[in-house]
Amino acid sequence: MPRSRLPGVETAALPLRVIGTLESCFPRKFGSPRQGHLVPDSMARLRLRPELIPEHALRGLEGFSHVWLLSYLHLCTNKGYRPTVHPPRLEGKTVGLFASRSPHRPSPVGLTLARLRAVEGGTLLLSGVDLADGTPILDVKPYLPACDRPAKARTGWPARLPARELSVRMAPGVRRALRGLREPAEARRLERLLRQVLRQDHRNPRDRSQMRPGKVLELFIEELLVEFSIDGKAAVVLGVRRDPRRPGS
Amino acid sequence: MPRSRLPGVETAALPLRVIGTLESCFPRKFGSPRQGHLVPDSMARLRLRPELIPEHALRGLEGFSHVWLLSYLHLCTNKGYRPTVHPPRLEGKTVGLFASRSPHRPSPVGLTLARLRAVEGGTLLLSGVDLADGTPILDVKPYLPACDRPAKARTGWPARLPARELSVRMAPGVRRALRGLREPAEARRLERLLRQVLRQDHRNPRDRSQMRPGKVLELFIEELLVEFSIDGKAAVVLGVRRDPRRPGS
Repeated sequence: MPRSRLPGVETAALPLRVIGTLESCFPRKFGSPRQGHLVPDSMARLRLRPELIPEHALRGLEGFSHVWLLSYLHLCTNKGYRPTVHPPRLEGKTVGLFASRSPHRPSPVGLTLARLRAVEGGTLLLSGVDLADGTPILDVKPYLPACDRPAKARTGWPARLPARELSVRMAPGVRRALRGLREPAEARRLERLLRQVLRQDHRNPRDRSQMRPGKVLELFIEELLVEFSIDGKAAVVLGVRRDPRRPGS
Repeated sequence: MPRSRLPGVETAALPLRVIGTLESCFPRKFGSPRQGHLVPDSMARLRLRPELIPEHALRGLEGFSHVWLLSYLHLCTNKGYRPTVHPPRLEGKTVGLFASRSPHRPSPVGLTLARLRAVEGGTLLLSGVDLADGTPILDVKPYLPACDRPAKARTGWPARLPARELSVRMAPGVRRALRGLREPAEARRLERLLRQVLRQDHRNPRDRSQMRPGKVLELFIEELLVEFSIDGKAAVVLGVRRDPRRPGS
């Protein structure tokens, strides 16, 4: 096994194969949710590499409602890792990294339970995905309740904490802007997705405590640029327009 | 990203870290069960590499009853992979590899839901494990029902098939042999584990159809050599003794 070194820590270069690159509605890391179940209206597509995966390798997968995506978290590989993490819900207290699902891990392999909406040729249509666009996918496995759902499970620290969610409001004109950008059903889905994303408060702990109320923040969803602000426990979507930095906009 | 070639297929050497090597009750691939939930009495231990993982990286993990083990299936890397597989329960029919949990995958990353019995320093004591001894572990994540258990899940082909299990019987003298090797409670656990393992029929399809009834087969569990035979739908444990090939036996 060939070996290399990252700053301070030995790594093993394991011969794994990227079976496809995820096309996701979250173009950036900022704004990508912590977990897929928080954003049921998120959409993604996984086109398996045709030179590696023939279509019949997917035969029978269409019968499953959910799949595991094992991913290489390519945006979480720069900083090394910290042995403890500060989950926002713990308000400054820490837990061990391995008691969390933080993506900053010694081996940045992501585990996402996604909804499988359809299989079209060598492409999986997915929803409920927490991964940024361009994430390399290492494996897809069917969700099997018999193996993957313990009869009784005890949950550690997260069970003791109330969910801390923001309320989300659309400023006047945002719904009209969405309807100008999308067909009606898609405009409604996008509004739900905006609410699902912003409810989570993606700011880092310093911004949460120090940010000036009313400051305009940006995030990107699908091909759109979303402007919003957060004041206390409320997020307000201020405007939605085509991301002017994308080619073709 | 450095690239190499396996026969016929490009691989990406991803800089992942082995955080520890699993010590499991299954010394060989033959006899390791398909899934951990089939063998609740299996035992394993994961000692995290102390030079990489300080003990406080595990703080809070002890509150969880189950963990995901992401593993590098080092015994399943030689043959490349086949796009379709023959699950024994399908009796000759095939399904796509990605509609199965076969370990022979383009990226041989295993996903095991294990019971976490205790955390002792930098060591996890586990049960319900389907991995062979010596399997490199890439990551440990807590099981979080909110993310990992969909409200409704539809299961494809496995849902339509009856479980095909063998009945398992102990030949005269086997229980006495187990009591000679272990304390009473451990002897009882080991008998349960033998039944859980042999119920599954680990033979390959050719042996299933062609093997002479009464032929003596061997498998290894913990430090023991188990002799058994299979006749029709019944497995009989013929004898259990210390594996004479292990050092110190």
